[in-house]
Amino acid sequence: MRLAQLSEDSGTTTATVKYYLREGLLPPGRRVNTTQAEYDESHLRRLRLIRALIQVGRLPVSTVREVLGAVDDDTRDQHSRIGAAVWALPHGAEPPAGDPSAAAAEETVRALLERLDWGFGRLAGPESPAYRMLVGAVAALHRLGYPCTTDELLPYAEAAARVAETDLDMVERYENADAQIEAAVACTVLYEPVLLSLRRLAEAEVSNRRFGTED
Amino acid sequence: MRLAQLSEDSGTTTATVKYYLREGLLPPGRRVNTTQAEYDESHLRRLRLIRALIQVGRLPVSTVREVLGAVDDDTRDQHSRIGAAVWALPHGAEPPAGDPSAAAAEETVRALLERLDWGFGRLAGPESPAYRMLVGAVAALHRLGYPCTTDELLPYAEAAARVAETDLDMVERYENADAQIEAAVACTVLYEPVLLSLRRLAEAEVSNRRFGTED
Repeated sequence: MRLAQLSEDSGTTTATVKYYLREGLLPPGRRVNTTQAEYDESHLRRLRLIRALIQVGRLPVSTVREVLGAVDDDTRDQHSRIGAAVWALPHGAEPPAGDPSAAAAEETVRALLERLDWGFGRLAGPESPAYRMLVGAVAALHRLGYPCTTDELLPYAEAAARVAETDLDMVERYENADAQIEAAVACTVLYEPVLLSLRRLAEAEVSNRRFGTED
Repeated sequence: MRLAQLSEDSGTTTATVKYYLREGLLPPGRRVNTTQAEYDESHLRRLRLIRALIQVGRLPVSTVREVLGAVDDDTRDQHSRIGAAVWALPHGAEPPAGDPSAAAAEETVRALLERLDWGFGRLAGPESPAYRMLVGAVAALHRLGYPCTTDELLPYAEAAARVAETDLDMVERYENADAQIEAAVACTVLYEPVLLSLRRLAEAEVSNRRFGTED
């Protein structure tokens, strides 16, 4: 398809498509003459991922470039490409350096992950952003005196594990490795607000059942 | 206790405690003479909540004031006070006005909530920010062509329901209604990064098991 068609099918203006091409986020089409290029399904799919990261995930272009670099690194296996792309996504604040609650939080997290026996290899180890984000969140709970022991975290981890199985089931329905990797990254970002809003709605449901007097 | 003790026990500088008092976020202590006031456990607990909202949740002071107003509204029952406080918390972007995917998303969300038979009353109805946030997230998935039917959302909602039961179990361990309401609001905010980081770690675990070749 030509650029106009790519723009129409993706719901993206031609100016935006050209911007993504210039920035190297979208790979160039196959040149058919000096002024025109031909695009295919892979461009359409890539445009969807870029829009998910920029318009919904609000990632800066430089971060999107980094995420896409990991997605496209075909010297690595599929797991490593997903892991490296998720690694490049923005994460919450780490515990501030020198925070005395960080060491205790690290201990809690280590005990939790040992209990779960998750064998995720290097990509989710103690140096990974997701692990640092968890330590930061646990440190904040410790510091403020809210409950957050290994036992208290366990049901959250079990819920997260079920969500992750659902995520990967969805990803495996895509037809090939490239499409699966792109879907894994997009769904990681796009399902975060789904999960957080459903938790707030579910809290209202449970709170109404336990404490409500109005209905 | 005096202000210096309150500052020490809460790990907050006296300047910050005085700022929260001036802003009306922290209720005044009981005057013991013209220059000194006496504070108690309820001040300590309130300081913890304020720090959770400002330092971890990054809420602006005006939003914190609104959340605390709902927490303190003792003309309402406990469920309504929690619901109104969570209502005042920041939520993700709503679907842009006139987005053609918003109507379809609203239909998907309505069908999901009917299927779940959650009876949460007015505080989590179609006008609530959590409901609007869910519609916005589903609209983005629809618009970008990623999977997001009622059936596909169901396992996420079931995971959210289990998380919410755990949340409220934790809240019910607090000794009285005021402490329970404050803990419900703080834990809603503080456990969001816990849940998101655990999901990313769990995804790495599941992805390694299904696609990994390195270990």
